[in-house]
Amino acid sequence: MTYQDLQRCVAEGASTAGITRDDLPTPALILDMTAFESNVARMAAHCRVHGLQLRPHAKTHKCPQIAKILIDAGAAGVCVAKISEAEVFADHGIGGILVTTPLVGRFRIERGVHLASRSPDAMFVADDVRNLRELDGAAAAAGIKLNVALELHVGRKAGVAPGEEALEFAGVIDSLPNLTFAGLQAYAGHASHVAGFEERKNASEQAMSPALQTKVLLEKSGFECPMLSGGSTGTYNIDCSFEGMTELQPGSYIFMDIDYNLIGGSDGPAFGDFQNALSVLTTVVSTPTEDMAIVDAGYKSFSTDRPFVPVARHAGGITYGWAGDEHGRLRTPAGAVHVGDRIEFLVPHCDPTVNLYDVIYCCRGERLENVWRISARGMSQ
Amino acid sequence: MTYQDLQRCVAEGASTAGITRDDLPTPALILDMTAFESNVARMAAHCRVHGLQLRPHAKTHKCPQIAKILIDAGAAGVCVAKISEAEVFADHGIGGILVTTPLVGRFRIERGVHLASRSPDAMFVADDVRNLRELDGAAAAAGIKLNVALELHVGRKAGVAPGEEALEFAGVIDSLPNLTFAGLQAYAGHASHVAGFEERKNASEQAMSPALQTKVLLEKSGFECPMLSGGSTGTYNIDCSFEGMTELQPGSYIFMDIDYNLIGGSDGPAFGDFQNALSVLTTVVSTPTEDMAIVDAGYKSFSTDRPFVPVARHAGGITYGWAGDEHGRLRTPAGAVHVGDRIEFLVPHCDPTVNLYDVIYCCRGERLENVWRISARGMSQ
Repeated sequence: MTYQDLQRCVAEGASTAGITRDDLPTPALILDMTAFESNVARMAAHCRVHGLQLRPHAKTHKCPQIAKILIDAGAAGVCVAKISEAEVFADHGIGGILVTTPLVGRFRIERGVHLASRSPDAMFVADDVRNLRELDGAAAAAGIKLNVALELHVGRKAGVAPGEEALEFAGVIDSLPNLTFAGLQAYAGHASHVAGFEERKNASEQAMSPALQTKVLLEKSGFECPMLSGGSTGTYNIDCSFEGMTELQPGSYIFMDIDYNLIGGSDGPAFGDFQNALSVLTTVVSTPTEDMAIVDAGYKSFSTDRPFVPVARHAGGITYGWAGDEHGRLRTPAGAVHVGDRIEFLVPHCDPTVNLYDVIYCCRGERLENVWRISARGMSQ
Repeated sequence: MTYQDLQRCVAEGASTAGITRDDLPTPALILDMTAFESNVARMAAHCRVHGLQLRPHAKTHKCPQIAKILIDAGAAGVCVAKISEAEVFADHGIGGILVTTPLVGRFRIERGVHLASRSPDAMFVADDVRNLRELDGAAAAAGIKLNVALELHVGRKAGVAPGEEALEFAGVIDSLPNLTFAGLQAYAGHASHVAGFEERKNASEQAMSPALQTKVLLEKSGFECPMLSGGSTGTYNIDCSFEGMTELQPGSYIFMDIDYNLIGGSDGPAFGDFQNALSVLTTVVSTPTEDMAIVDAGYKSFSTDRPFVPVARHAGGITYGWAGDEHGRLRTPAGAVHVGDRIEFLVPHCDPTVNLYDVIYCCRGERLENVWRISARGMSQ
């Protein structure tokens, strides 16, 4: 097979028959389908058992094919971080979109109204009264209604303070004729990576209890509050027990990464509830010394924001060190690694790593099964 | 103007008349054209004065329009890190391509031969004898000659050891009928970010002196050695004095970043030879407390591999903290920042940040002058 042949085979929708991992140009983003399917099924079953909706966060995968698989497995739709992401999923026929960042900034409201016109079940969040009035005005001009959830400040980012302030804010949403109050979003992102299950449980309970109380307050005050959306891969088995949660919005569980492996599980020191399904395949391009090898993947192929680095899937005494934008420097047992060898690494942080690639190669064992386009890559607007 | 109007105006080649920075959807990658042009001219003049060729590294910008501007200002061509990048520049008519990573791995040699067939002046590097024989065989099969430079181990990455080993390796290149010996590449990347001018000068002299000696050895032994390519933005005013250097391959100087600002200059504690031309424009999407503001740009909008963070261009007491993939958390003077405010940040590390964006907005003052496509974004293969 030539490279030209390969390009034809991996074109979207073409047959991948006969292609293996070994044929892929590196660095290549690889999805282990067996592990991925296990992760998808486990979270879907978990939410079914606990009577919760599941709206997985698509900022993790940015891939319409993955959103469809998650919805087929029972998800209510997708969360997206930004309006530009939402547009991509809507273009691919995905419904149940919740845009988890307020529509602020020139043109974002226009884009939100346009989205809602074609996807009437789309939901938005807000935490600013002036922003609410702008949303209402734009919806009126378009002759539509916008579903707006109140963003609660339970984490370290956006949001209205829980309690009386939230009650007042919900009243404003309710009073505006072109907005429909959709419920609450309360995302305690800081809790998701707390190491140790008990510590994480405490952090999430502490963060989320004002949200649960606010939901009760709203309902006592006569507001129908159909949604309380929150939770993450790290707290999926904690937040499911909170009375009043209606849905979880985890993202990383479908892929997993080193960051999440390290937080610890409910049954031991490693968080092993979900399998590592995502990796980057690299090629050794040089072995300048006996115990050093250079691979073709650096900061442009792995994203990290923590001190840790990619980890070789089949370690064999190999450790990765950053060597700039384009390369990694491996320490290896003397003479163990040769120019042309292909080495696969688990990724430090999955979401921003996926955002570096245009396609994800879906493999079952060695066999290439599909090539999926990461259509919302770069959609941070 | 509506968002739809804007999209039409920023389509490639359309008129940007009447558009300002304030119209751009955020996060937006912004190029200050006045600073950029000053940087381009300064490096071009520097190389002219020192009688050196300039082959700027395009892994920094990944943008054919920028490559053309650099060549118009006197550059001999472009360096690229990977063959997939080379293909994009060749597609846009850019000549004088030097691919700075060896062609290793399935299909890379095939792609290299294809590139050389249409761009006969393209140059490649190698440091492995088996790889040389593969290159020679592929060139023979295609009926062409490949220009191959010897990659010297002067840094912490790839390369043949300087001295006798290099002489022997050059002999192998020379002996293979379908390869043309193009000279030496010696890139001491570790020297480029050494803080303090004297310390950096020492580091570069120490790293590069075996390369300079190797060039003399080769020439004494009868090899014509038309090229010794190396150097970086950090060492441009050091390596220019090395007897035997024929060209510099700096990249970051066109944009500059916080990383390079911190290395110190020849005339003071800050490296101010080049201006900060690159920034990311963000929007405040929430102000959950008086002294905190959330902007719409996180790890997917700024790349970093160092402890430092984006810096507000017009500080005003604002400091940036990471708040995940999608957001930043600003500390601000109480009440100073409001929802909807637009705040511009210098980037920690320019190359991998540019690699996150599809377009770069070229502004002169407030006015949008051009929108350039980052056509080689994601081309890490």
